[in-house]
Amino acid sequence: MEQIIARMKPPGQDVRDRGDWLKEAEKDMLETLKYPIIQAPMAGGVSTPALAAAVSDAGGLGFLAGGYKTSEGLEKEILELRERTAAAFGVNLFVPGADTADQEAVGAYRAKLLKEADRVNASLGAPDYDDDDYARKIELVIAKRVPLVSFTFGCPAKEIVQTLQENDIKVAVTVTNPDEAASALDAGADVLCLQGAEAGGHRGTFSNDPDPQEDIGLLALIRLVRTLTDKPLIAAGGVMDGAGVRAVLAAGANAAQLGTAFLLCPESGTNPVYRKALTDPRFTSTRITRAFTGRRARGLVNRFMETYGAEAPAAYPQVHHLTQQLRKEAAARGDAECMSLWAGQGYRMARAIPAEQLVRELMNEF
Amino acid sequence: MEQIIARMKPPGQDVRDRGDWLKEAEKDMLETLKYPIIQAPMAGGVSTPALAAAVSDAGGLGFLAGGYKTSEGLEKEILELRERTAAAFGVNLFVPGADTADQEAVGAYRAKLLKEADRVNASLGAPDYDDDDYARKIELVIAKRVPLVSFTFGCPAKEIVQTLQENDIKVAVTVTNPDEAASALDAGADVLCLQGAEAGGHRGTFSNDPDPQEDIGLLALIRLVRTLTDKPLIAAGGVMDGAGVRAVLAAGANAAQLGTAFLLCPESGTNPVYRKALTDPRFTSTRITRAFTGRRARGLVNRFMETYGAEAPAAYPQVHHLTQQLRKEAAARGDAECMSLWAGQGYRMARAIPAEQLVRELMNEF
Repeated sequence: MEQIIARMKPPGQDVRDRGDWLKEAEKDMLETLKYPIIQAPMAGGVSTPALAAAVSDAGGLGFLAGGYKTSEGLEKEILELRERTAAAFGVNLFVPGADTADQEAVGAYRAKLLKEADRVNASLGAPDYDDDDYARKIELVIAKRVPLVSFTFGCPAKEIVQTLQENDIKVAVTVTNPDEAASALDAGADVLCLQGAEAGGHRGTFSNDPDPQEDIGLLALIRLVRTLTDKPLIAAGGVMDGAGVRAVLAAGANAAQLGTAFLLCPESGTNPVYRKALTDPRFTSTRITRAFTGRRARGLVNRFMETYGAEAPAAYPQVHHLTQQLRKEAAARGDAECMSLWAGQGYRMARAIPAEQLVRELMNEF
Repeated sequence: MEQIIARMKPPGQDVRDRGDWLKEAEKDMLETLKYPIIQAPMAGGVSTPALAAAVSDAGGLGFLAGGYKTSEGLEKEILELRERTAAAFGVNLFVPGADTADQEAVGAYRAKLLKEADRVNASLGAPDYDDDDYARKIELVIAKRVPLVSFTFGCPAKEIVQTLQENDIKVAVTVTNPDEAASALDAGADVLCLQGAEAGGHRGTFSNDPDPQEDIGLLALIRLVRTLTDKPLIAAGGVMDGAGVRAVLAAGANAAQLGTAFLLCPESGTNPVYRKALTDPRFTSTRITRAFTGRRARGLVNRFMETYGAEAPAAYPQVHHLTQQLRKEAAARGDAECMSLWAGQGYRMARAIPAEQLVRELMNEF
């Protein structure tokens, strides 16, 4: 923390003047990050190369979301990002879980959703397992020498961590409790990304047990994990402004990771219907649900969540594939009640301003 | 925040030297609190006059828990506390809800628990409604000129707030979301006590709807409520050490309220079986449950919670009365699996040291 703060230039000066920082970034990115602001990787189209470039150019750290796409798709994004900026950035990858879904439960859920699909004349996908092209994406981030690779939904194998590090890639692992933090440290992670219960989108829990694990609030999580390690900690969950950033640094984190805060930025790929829902007073709260993907994720409470949340099985990515087309078609016809509207608990504070301005405002508030 | 910090003496000096602070406390307690450390009121025997006196004497603010006892019982505690210290303190009262419990659901739950009671040869109580002697407790805190009265489970009527204020009593209202905060401000509360989802014990939500409200993490809650008001905010939930205190102040709170952190202090009335469970590696997580009282509360996950959590109705205080004897008898025979073990998410960081030493260590860390 002290190091980041000591190296921070006063906000307000030209944020493009990064000079030595880029060279230093090669050495130890998080410790030399100009601003302790990291844009969270948001899979499903939100995290665009334009958003990541704007955040990195503003002195924060932009992120690409590697999940849900092919390695070719991710490669295209990395190339586009590098065309837009020479600044450092991160790529997030999903760690595939085992194919252990209860097929009967998936079938029962599919039967329920068929009625929903018929009603709106939409279609369901095949609830198949896949590993999100994991191995090829690992090869890709090595080939492209991505400065920071973070992992979600599990801990990468020790050998993968080591291989990345041998290629001068920093490795972050997303954790939601002290046990996961201990595993990530055992695997040799350089950085832990602590995801508090407040965070929008998928919980990064290693396992997808039907009986959910405790969702620990960010402040308690930082303190609990800080007793385990002196390594850099990135804190995510409910951080929406400079005072929030200040608070997680005061708690012992080295940087704040903000996702929901960037959802309304013009550079974000946030679907217009989703974007509108975030400021629609009709939506008044968030909840964690398995309804959309079979994995627990936080979003605005809407009809789909209320109708199917209690019945959705712990089957990821099967349920994701099952509902994907349904959600796309809902977005196309402007039906926010039938889409995933991922949002963290601070969503009311999201600002519809360019990402570079948002980073600057965050630092002014800080 | 600035005011508290400006008035704080450097930690380490004799904390008994309170001098002018006490006189100022009569005027505006929270703004002149020596240390921004408030001991949370914990009903059910934990918050003793000895604990409150030790915390207030150490420069924090001790609290008596007015809930679950008669007004005579509370009066005795106030007298004992005043014998122990001349320092300021607070009293917490439960705001009674309407008697709207679903009697059929309560009956069904009673039938389930009968088996449990038979198994251990224990008895169930009558699941009756009561208003926790609310009106007489209001009269009592006025008669005794308690410096600060906080409310939980609802917002006191405007007239009550006003009457207390006319008697130079500061009024705090416990809130868990921005809507409740707005109601408490409308009612004229002097102070809001923000309870984050991390907190141990009962959720202070105004309503006890079967469909639970969103549990907002403390950092997000502070930021959301700070946009509504400049009034003093007390922040509770997962704060266990000085860095936690620093973090909630950085987020915009004026003081931190710690409950779980005091559970292992010798002055606390924490039952020995409960005390032991808090450091027993057998208990590995916390959860919010209605199993023990019919109102949502966070505690260590044990057999009773796992067995009955899903079936317990939203019926408070009926279920509290129903299980009270069962829990007492479990404690008497040393059975931690059948008791409420209220604990916040940071419980692993609780320290078994005297309360005055804890306050001093918190401020050293801060």
